[in-house]
Amino acid sequence: MSSELPVSPLLISVPEQYFGSDYAAGAHPAVMRALAATNLQKTAGYGQDEYCREAADLIRAACRCPEAEVRFLIGGSQTNMVALTALLASYQGVAAAQTGHIWGHEAGAIERGGHRVIPLPSHDGRVAAEDLRSLWTSYLNDETRDHIVMPGAVYLSQPTESGTLYSLAQLREISAVCREAGLSLYVDGARLAYALSCPENDVSLPDLAALCDAFYIGGTKCGALFGEALVFPKAGRVPHFFSVMKQSGAVLAKGRLLGVQFKALFTDGLYGEIGRTALEKADRLRRGLCALGFKPLGSSPTNQIFIRVSEPLYHALTGAGFGGFWSLEPDGTYVIRFVTDWSAGENDVQLLLDFLARNRDNK
Amino acid sequence: MSSELPVSPLLISVPEQYFGSDYAAGAHPAVMRALAATNLQKTAGYGQDEYCREAADLIRAACRCPEAEVRFLIGGSQTNMVALTALLASYQGVAAAQTGHIWGHEAGAIERGGHRVIPLPSHDGRVAAEDLRSLWTSYLNDETRDHIVMPGAVYLSQPTESGTLYSLAQLREISAVCREAGLSLYVDGARLAYALSCPENDVSLPDLAALCDAFYIGGTKCGALFGEALVFPKAGRVPHFFSVMKQSGAVLAKGRLLGVQFKALFTDGLYGEIGRTALEKADRLRRGLCALGFKPLGSSPTNQIFIRVSEPLYHALTGAGFGGFWSLEPDGTYVIRFVTDWSAGENDVQLLLDFLARNRDNK
Amino acid sequence: MSSELPVSPLLISVPEQYFGSDYAAGAHPAVMRALAATNLQKTAGYGQDEYCREAADLIRAACRCPEAEVRFLIGGSQTNMVALTALLASYQGVAAAQTGHIWGHEAGAIERGGHRVIPLPSHDGRVAAEDLRSLWTSYLNDETRDHIVMPGAVYLSQPTESGTLYSLAQLREISAVCREAGLSLYVDGARLAYALSCPENDVSLPDLAALCDAFYIGGTKCGALFGEALVFPKAGRVPHFFSVMKQSGAVLAKGRLLGVQFKALFTDGLYGEIGRTALEKADRLRRGLCALGFKPLGSSPTNQIFIRVSEPLYHALTGAGFGGFWSLEPDGTYVIRFVTDWSAGENDVQLLLDFLARNRDNK
Amino acid sequence: MSSELPVSPLLISVPEQYFGSDYAAGAHPAVMRALAATNLQKTAGYGQDEYCREAADLIRAACRCPEAEVRFLIGGSQTNMVALTALLASYQGVAAAQTGHIWGHEAGAIERGGHRVIPLPSHDGRVAAEDLRSLWTSYLNDETRDHIVMPGAVYLSQPTESGTLYSLAQLREISAVCREAGLSLYVDGARLAYALSCPENDVSLPDLAALCDAFYIGGTKCGALFGEALVFPKAGRVPHFFSVMKQSGAVLAKGRLLGVQFKALFTDGLYGEIGRTALEKADRLRRGLCALGFKPLGSSPTNQIFIRVSEPLYHALTGAGFGGFWSLEPDGTYVIRFVTDWSAGENDVQLLLDFLARNRDNK
Repeated sequence: MSSELPVSPLLISVPEQYFGSDYAAGAHPAVMRALAATNLQKTAGYGQDEYCREAADLIRAACRCPEAEVRFLIGGSQTNMVALTALLASYQGVAAAQTGHIWGHEAGAIERGGHRVIPLPSHDGRVAAEDLRSLWTSYLNDETRDHIVMPGAVYLSQPTESGTLYSLAQLREISAVCREAGLSLYVDGARLAYALSCPENDVSLPDLAALCDAFYIGGTKCGALFGEALVFPKAGRVPHFFSVMKQSGAVLAKGRLLGVQFKALFTDGLYGEIGRTALEKADRLRRGLCALGFKPLGSSPTNQIFIRVSEPLYHALTGAGFGGFWSLEPDGTYVIRFVTDWSAGENDVQLLLDFLARNRDNK
Repeated sequence: MSSELPVSPLLISVPEQYFGSDYAAGAHPAVMRALAATNLQKTAGYGQDEYCREAADLIRAACRCPEAEVRFLIGGSQTNMVALTALLASYQGVAAAQTGHIWGHEAGAIERGGHRVIPLPSHDGRVAAEDLRSLWTSYLNDETRDHIVMPGAVYLSQPTESGTLYSLAQLREISAVCREAGLSLYVDGARLAYALSCPENDVSLPDLAALCDAFYIGGTKCGALFGEALVFPKAGRVPHFFSVMKQSGAVLAKGRLLGVQFKALFTDGLYGEIGRTALEKADRLRRGLCALGFKPLGSSPTNQIFIRVSEPLYHALTGAGFGGFWSLEPDGTYVIRFVTDWSAGENDVQLLLDFLARNRDNK
Repeated sequence: MSSELPVSPLLISVPEQYFGSDYAAGAHPAVMRALAATNLQKTAGYGQDEYCREAADLIRAACRCPEAEVRFLIGGSQTNMVALTALLASYQGVAAAQTGHIWGHEAGAIERGGHRVIPLPSHDGRVAAEDLRSLWTSYLNDETRDHIVMPGAVYLSQPTESGTLYSLAQLREISAVCREAGLSLYVDGARLAYALSCPENDVSLPDLAALCDAFYIGGTKCGALFGEALVFPKAGRVPHFFSVMKQSGAVLAKGRLLGVQFKALFTDGLYGEIGRTALEKADRLRRGLCALGFKPLGSSPTNQIFIRVSEPLYHALTGAGFGGFWSLEPDGTYVIRFVTDWSAGENDVQLLLDFLARNRDNK
Repeated sequence: MSSELPVSPLLISVPEQYFGSDYAAGAHPAVMRALAATNLQKTAGYGQDEYCREAADLIRAACRCPEAEVRFLIGGSQTNMVALTALLASYQGVAAAQTGHIWGHEAGAIERGGHRVIPLPSHDGRVAAEDLRSLWTSYLNDETRDHIVMPGAVYLSQPTESGTLYSLAQLREISAVCREAGLSLYVDGARLAYALSCPENDVSLPDLAALCDAFYIGGTKCGALFGEALVFPKAGRVPHFFSVMKQSGAVLAKGRLLGVQFKALFTDGLYGEIGRTALEKADRLRRGLCALGFKPLGSSPTNQIFIRVSEPLYHALTGAGFGGFWSLEPDGTYVIRFVTDWSAGENDVQLLLDFLARNRDNK
């Protein structure tokens, strides 16, 4: 039966994408230049090269964590899967908001690795320390707890999948619960550039290094062709982590490609600039949407914006290459997501706003 | 950290148990006699003996399903794990009520096998057809569905973990949703004797065979020393199922022990009698509890009864060997569970009621 | 295709078995009596009862290892799978002789748990310390070792699958290699009674406790209905081991059945007597076979005897219920295995010898 | 213990590499130009773009297999793991030569996915049809076969890890055994360019499409930055394969990068040219080595050359950036591997030969 599903809409390709995601284009030109400039060099494989070493040094410096272990992986779902399954004991699960990427959009990769994702309520995309505390207390108080999945780690995203941010106070409280309970704290930073450059943000890389057991600095959605920098503030947290990566098919043969890119991203403030460019566009888009009467859902201050539209408007927008599916609501309306990125694209915000202005009757 | 947890209350053994579970005693005397009578016979191992063949024939006859494949496994969690992981494709998950055994009390066995348990709301222990339909529709309507866990099967228990029953109408509706969507329907019958003998029940073994892809007839909790009879109404539903069992450590070397027991259970109406005995005791206990002012929670008509008690009364009861932990509520009260079984135990209901009468001030 | 295989010979059941295995009958009468005597008692489930506690105490005493953690599981393949996957890190494999049960007869259970079985040459059923040392040295010397499966444990059986024994000197040498290399040493004692009672044996339970990280004392093949006693000489070697067992479907609800049986086996020297009875029968059978001109293969001094026979004789023997398949050789001859057990069966040795005498022309 | 291993030699990076591997440099300049030219385009993600569609069309045409399903993954180990675990039933293993990459250099990825790699003898890197036939016959003849790992697929590499080739006759014979036995045939084409362009080769892409169940056309080692094109000649062979990939972290967000690269590789004969360039260099190097008295081991006609050298010469060579570790032999000598690639590098062959001429006394 399952193979007879109607062809997925994903299979209908669209020539040009606007605001559908922050991974529609290639790499930031400075990153691409670095790849081109080093292209014909021959180096050791698997990340055992000078570029990876330099990139790791830059990241350790940015995190003010000279002891950190930095590993370069290829994509976000892969990094979550490899890191979380390595942090958990076989009988443990990882708690995450029901809006979390590992719950909703990784096709069961954590479970494939043998572990439950324990869903927690989403508070505008965030996990609440209070919910974690309850989860742990309820585990401890359960006289049959040896029969249930033991919480072993907490997954959260900064910014969240809803575009919102954890404040430093929130992250500290969560980290405190984790340390008291012995849970590993893992932060998915697929879009970390858009948190770090956000005026509302007060969580720095050194804060992450101080509060987490592992986190990753996103490359794919933040100006790289691909790649994520996984940071274990305490080196050796997972013994033989290279073999763990290899066993999951997560080692890039030409590993230096990751080093070259992250070196470029962490040189001359490029990572910050990439974040700022996208956030400025997002602010312009948000203001324009409000002016047109489209009130964004939730309270994202970062590069993701969600609005509710009618079915005809949804199809008009995506047909023209604007935005992407978020959800179909029970009342037949759609939530569409707009995501801004680092690319210059001076006119694209205006193009979208003009399109909406012309089609607003379908709102 | 995890190894420093306070010693689990489970480790405090209690000499005698009343109503703590339906697996506190050994086997029904008739089952034990059959085991003793055949003890010194030497037969082929691994279930390839005459007793298993006869037991399977009796079960096929009781299910009015002459084509069924019957497999004998050792315990309930094991049967759920082996059968469900065999029914699912690698990228599929199994939907279950949040009160379902595979969600709450199997330590993540389904996930260990690589699959998500997709939690659904519990309606007094039951999955609702409407919730299943929504789950499937929402999967189909999600334009990113190739990135999410595909529902592949539905797990339900008859009677449920809350002691309630699915009516034939409810089961038919669920089965219809499953067949339309291509989901496998699996029924956990750990306590099936207590459904089949219940006056309120209208779901027979032939109904299960007609409506499910697989179900098991519980032995462990219904009069056997151990053992569950897994029925695939359509033989060959899982190719090489013996190897699947073996690979999970779920084959009993002296397999005939399972055949001998199930032959006894399905001879002369023993399985039905075992159910009736427990249900009569449960009814007496329910009436007595109400008379004392303890109103059972939910609407279980079977052999499980849940009441809410104060902390002191909870400790008094369990300290005296009565009942077992169900949950600790946020307000500090406990839900305690009483489970009746097939054993004669004429006086035990009265013992418990007397104990409660003496200690009711702690209610 | 795979489901169209010809029906496995396993499916042809035979009424009575002689020497086909040591798990053809039920339990030793003393064990059965203990089960019957305690049958109607009601105790805590899952091994949290007095019988399991007493049995564990008896085993700790027999091992002269008062600190040991003793866990009761149901079968041998299950115990191997649960214990070994718990002892290994995700990127590690377990070395075993190519004749080892986990390589040849567990349907890939270790791999299902995520780990490679690393096959080593079999020296009449045994792993050689020298081969282990080479395996480890070759791993260490391999400059690409982070890309290969790291040896993490060694599996051996006492007696081996070929019926042979490790001497204390051999076991000490293997243990020394393991400790130097950081490998866990695991001993499968499915037939341990037949080693412990063998005059040629010089490895005691206290030796196993001193030299291994984990081992199990077989019940299923040594007089129990079922059950294996897994011993971790160092308690807590695997944290939360109960949950590990539960997650693999390896916890028996009526856990006390295992305690009752092992208590009986370790009372009044029963385990030793069971071993001796089988070994005496094996000796008589060996002498008789030699007298008839059938020279046993290998050098098993325990309860397994292997002889090579022609195809017609093989079918005659198994058709009459004698012995079991071991291998079909490239030249068309069969290796048939005879296994003796604890059951009295005064005449069965003579029956088999008479049968062979009548059919020896087919040798 | 394991975390205290001496630092792996892998961690000592070397500035420039000669003949250490065919993945030391970036991409072929034509591939890099294509990436740069399309860098700022915005397309749909996850491979749902025009470039992937065009690349798949080019590959289908080259394979003369218009119905084929083409999927783009990131690396070779990943492709092997994802494809093989999807082709196998849970209780099946995959047979491979002991020199095969999945046996020796993937850190147990297939086992992590739940399946055994069944090692077969290596015939200068190749699997023999005869050995496969024996494996299958022995499985079929084993009366306990339901207890053993069922062979479900065959893995081979073209060219092999030893640089040798399967002839069309050999591949046809293997394919015939597979089809008769119902085994899936999978070919790892990590270095396929170096087979396809080799004068000794008589196996074409259409032959692979006709004889295999799945194979991949290597990009990483054949001129791409990264990427492998997995071909299922029969589309739909694995239902929901996109989800299978996603669940293993094997989907590239900016999937079009793979399409752009394979479109370039399959345009204007670039893939063939890349192969030829490397093979010409290899021939020059082979002739030079022989002239210096270093006889290559085995009979590789492709881009890998293996010679045996003394320990001092091994260290001299690798210290200077020449070649890479293959094995340390029991007599203390090393086998070193030289691999040529597509890069122009006019002088590198001469540099190596001169170095060897100067250091031959250490031979």
